[in-house]
Amino acid sequence: MRTRPLKVALLGCGVVGSEVARIMTTHADDLAARIGAPVELAGVAVRRPDKVREGIDPALVTTDATALVKRGDLDVVVEVIGGIEPARTLITTAFEHGASVVSANKALLAQDGAALHAAAEEHGRDLYYEAAVAGAIPLIRPLRESLAGDKVNRVLGIVNGTTNFILDKMDSTGAGYQEALDEATALGYAEADPTADVEGFDAAAKAAILAGIAFHTRVRLDDVYREGMTEVTAADFASAKEMGCTIKLLAICERAADGASVTARVHPAMIPLSHPLASVRGAYNAVFVESDAAGQLMFYGPGAGGSPTASAVLGDLVAVCRNRLSGATGPGESAYAALPVSPMGDVVTRYHISLDVADKPGVLAQVATVFAEHGVSIDTVRQQGKDGEASLVVVTHRASDAALHGTVEALRKLDTVRGVASIMRVEGE
Amino acid sequence: MRTRPLKVALLGCGVVGSEVARIMTTHADDLAARIGAPVELAGVAVRRPDKVREGIDPALVTTDATALVKRGDLDVVVEVIGGIEPARTLITTAFEHGASVVSANKALLAQDGAALHAAAEEHGRDLYYEAAVAGAIPLIRPLRESLAGDKVNRVLGIVNGTTNFILDKMDSTGAGYQEALDEATALGYAEADPTADVEGFDAAAKAAILAGIAFHTRVRLDDVYREGMTEVTAADFASAKEMGCTIKLLAICERAADGASVTARVHPAMIPLSHPLASVRGAYNAVFVESDAAGQLMFYGPGAGGSPTASAVLGDLVAVCRNRLSGATGPGESAYAALPVSPMGDVVTRYHISLDVADKPGVLAQVATVFAEHGVSIDTVRQQGKDGEASLVVVTHRASDAALHGTVEALRKLDTVRGVASIMRVEGE
Repeated sequence: MRTRPLKVALLGCGVVGSEVARIMTTHADDLAARIGAPVELAGVAVRRPDKVREGIDPALVTTDATALVKRGDLDVVVEVIGGIEPARTLITTAFEHGASVVSANKALLAQDGAALHAAAEEHGRDLYYEAAVAGAIPLIRPLRESLAGDKVNRVLGIVNGTTNFILDKMDSTGAGYQEALDEATALGYAEADPTADVEGFDAAAKAAILAGIAFHTRVRLDDVYREGMTEVTAADFASAKEMGCTIKLLAICERAADGASVTARVHPAMIPLSHPLASVRGAYNAVFVESDAAGQLMFYGPGAGGSPTASAVLGDLVAVCRNRLSGATGPGESAYAALPVSPMGDVVTRYHISLDVADKPGVLAQVATVFAEHGVSIDTVRQQGKDGEASLVVVTHRASDAALHGTVEALRKLDTVRGVASIMRVEGE
Repeated sequence: MRTRPLKVALLGCGVVGSEVARIMTTHADDLAARIGAPVELAGVAVRRPDKVREGIDPALVTTDATALVKRGDLDVVVEVIGGIEPARTLITTAFEHGASVVSANKALLAQDGAALHAAAEEHGRDLYYEAAVAGAIPLIRPLRESLAGDKVNRVLGIVNGTTNFILDKMDSTGAGYQEALDEATALGYAEADPTADVEGFDAAAKAAILAGIAFHTRVRLDDVYREGMTEVTAADFASAKEMGCTIKLLAICERAADGASVTARVHPAMIPLSHPLASVRGAYNAVFVESDAAGQLMFYGPGAGGSPTASAVLGDLVAVCRNRLSGATGPGESAYAALPVSPMGDVVTRYHISLDVADKPGVLAQVATVFAEHGVSIDTVRQQGKDGEASLVVVTHRASDAALHGTVEALRKLDTVRGVASIMRVEGE
C-alpha cells in the first residue's frame, strides 16, 4: 500500500460535509485499505469559520474556497455546497488545478452537467456525483456501468422524500395537502420554504440527470416537464383507491416507442397498488428501471439525509481515489446517442379525468363525442349523481398529452360541463 | 474512438451465452460508443458444434476451449459454462495468456474466488462477475464500489428465484411444497432435479460471494450454514400469517454485534409482511442491505434467465473493456478485514417453535422451565387444544442458535412433548 496520502478538500461542512469528514476520520483505516493509500483531509471551506466542528482540526478550516481549490496539491475536491454558484466555478477551478471532483449537487449537474464533464475530460480528471440523485441509493453507477451493455427504455422514480412523505400521509390518513405538509415540516421532512420539493424542481433536476445517463443523451433541466403536487386532493386519493391505485410524485424518463426520441417529466400520477413503487413509504426513495435485457429492476433506500448522502459521497471518493492511483479515469459523460428530447405534448400515457357536469340526459353522449373527436379512446366511465349535479370519471386508453389537453379544452367549453375537477395521469401499468 | 476492435471470446453458448452473442451483434454500435472501441466476437467454445446458432458465424465456433483461451490475442474471456471444471482451468489459463475475465459462475466464485482473484491480480487483469449473484440486479458493483466508503452490517436476500416462486405459491394458494414444486417445474422455474435450488446450495454460493464482498473478508461456500426449504409446510405458512409474517428462503450475511466476526447462512425464515422483502413475488430476487451510513437499501429484479444474466455480463464486459483501454484494472478482491467466520451456533436471532404436547395441566410450566434453563427468553406462547392433544407455539426473544438447539433437544426428552412440529427463525424485524 502506498503510504503517501491522497489529499482531499471538502467544500461545505453542513449536514453532509460534516458527516463525510467524520467518516473519513473514524474509518480512515478501512478507507485506506479499500483505496490502497491513506486519504487525508487537506482543507475544509466553510462560510462560518467560528462554528465549532467536532473532530475537524480548526487549522484546516478556511473561508477562502477559491484559494483551497487552487492549491495544486489536491487529489480530490468534494463539493457539498449545493446551488449553482460558487459551486460551478469552484469545481471548474479544481479541475484546472489537477483535482478530481465528487459532487452531490443535483441542481448544478442538471443545469451544467455537459460543461462540467467537458472540463473534467479536458483535464483528464473524474467527475462523480452518485449523491446527487436519491441520496444513498446506488443509481448513477448502476445506470452508467452495470447497465452499460443494456438498452434502458424507462426510468420511473420516487426521487423526492419530502413529497413522498406528504403523499403517503395523505394516502394513509385521508389528510389534505396542507395538513400533511404541516406534519412534514414539523418533523423536519420539509423545509420552511418547501417550493423546491412540492413544486417538483428538485425531482426535475434528478430526472434530467437520470435521463441523460439512461439514454446517453444530454437532457437539461429545461427539457424536463414539471408539475408539482400541491393540487393533489383527498378526493384524488379516493378516486385512486377506487381504481386500485395510489398517487406518487414520479420522475419519468422514457424512450419513445420508436426509439428515436426521449422525454423526461415530473408530475403526480396514479400507479397501481401492485406496482413496487406503490409501497414505497414515508421519506424513502425508489427508482424503477426497465431495460431490454435486464427487464425490471428497482433500487430502494433513503433519498436524503446527512449520513446516507455521505455514504454515496464516500463511495465516489473511494472510486475516484482508486482511479488516481491507477492513473486512469472512470466513465465520463456518455451523450453519443444525442436523441431529441420531445415536448410533453408527445408523451403517451393514460388519464383519469373527473368532471363536474349537469345532471341531464345526453351529457355523457356529449362528453364522449368530444373525446372521440380528439382521438382519445375511453376505457371506462363512471357517472355519479350528487344533489342535482353529477360527476363523471373518465379513464382513457393511451393517448398523447397534446390530444388529452385538446380534449379537456373542448370539454371546458361545453355548457353541460361545470368544471374539470382533476386530471391525473395513470402510470406503471 | 479507437478503430481496432477489442477481442472477446465466449466460453459456453447456452441460454446466457447465445444472448450475450446476440446483443454483442445487434447492439455493436452502442457498445463501441460506450467502450470507446468496437468489440469483436473472436471465438465461441461449445460442446455441440453442430447445433445451429442463429447470428453466430460458424467459423468462430470451436470445441477446443483451451486452445481458444490460449490464443494470446484476446482482450476478454466471457465464461458462462458454469460448474467448477473446466471453467476454473480455462479462466486461469485466460489470465496467463493476457485476457481479463467476465464470469457468471457462482459455484466457482464461491469455492475458489480467492485463487481466481489472485491469478487475475498476478497477471494484472480484471475478474468481474456481476452475473454470478441475482442475475441482472446490480449488486456486486454497488457493494464493492458504491458502498466502498460505508460499513455494511447485514445483507438479507432472496437470491433464488425457483424457491421464491415455490414459497410465494404456497403462501398465496395454500398449496403444499410438492404441489408448488410441481407447478414450478411445469412452468420451467424449477429444473428436473431441483436439489441445488430447494436445498439451498445455489443460495449458499451467492451468500458466500456477497458476504465476502460486504465484509472485506474471505467467506467460502463451506463457511455458509445451509438449510433447504423442502420441509416448509402449509401449517408453517398459517403460523406465519398469525404472526403477520410470510416465509422466504433467505441468504443472511451478518456482522456480529461487536463487529469482530461475521456469519453467513441460508435457511427459510419468517419475515414481517411490512418488510420490503416480504412483497417480492414469483421468481424475482431482491437483496436488502443495511449499512452504517446509507441505512437500508434494497435492490430488486429478475434473478435469473438468459436476457437478465446477459445484461449483467455485458455491463461487466463494457467495464472490463474500458479498463483495458485505459490500461487500468478495476477493484480486485478486498479481503483485508479478514474477520473470522463464526459457526451457526453463534448466530443470534428469534425463533418460532411449534410443539405437539399432552393436553395436561403443568405442561406449559415444564416447557417454560426448559427454555429458562437454556437462557432462552420467551416472548409469547399460544396454547391450542385439539382432540385430547394440544399444541404450543412459542416465539422467543433473541437467542443464540446454540442455546435454541440445546432447548429443543431438552424439550424432545420431556414425556409431555409428543413432538417438535417446526422450528422457524424470525428475521428482518
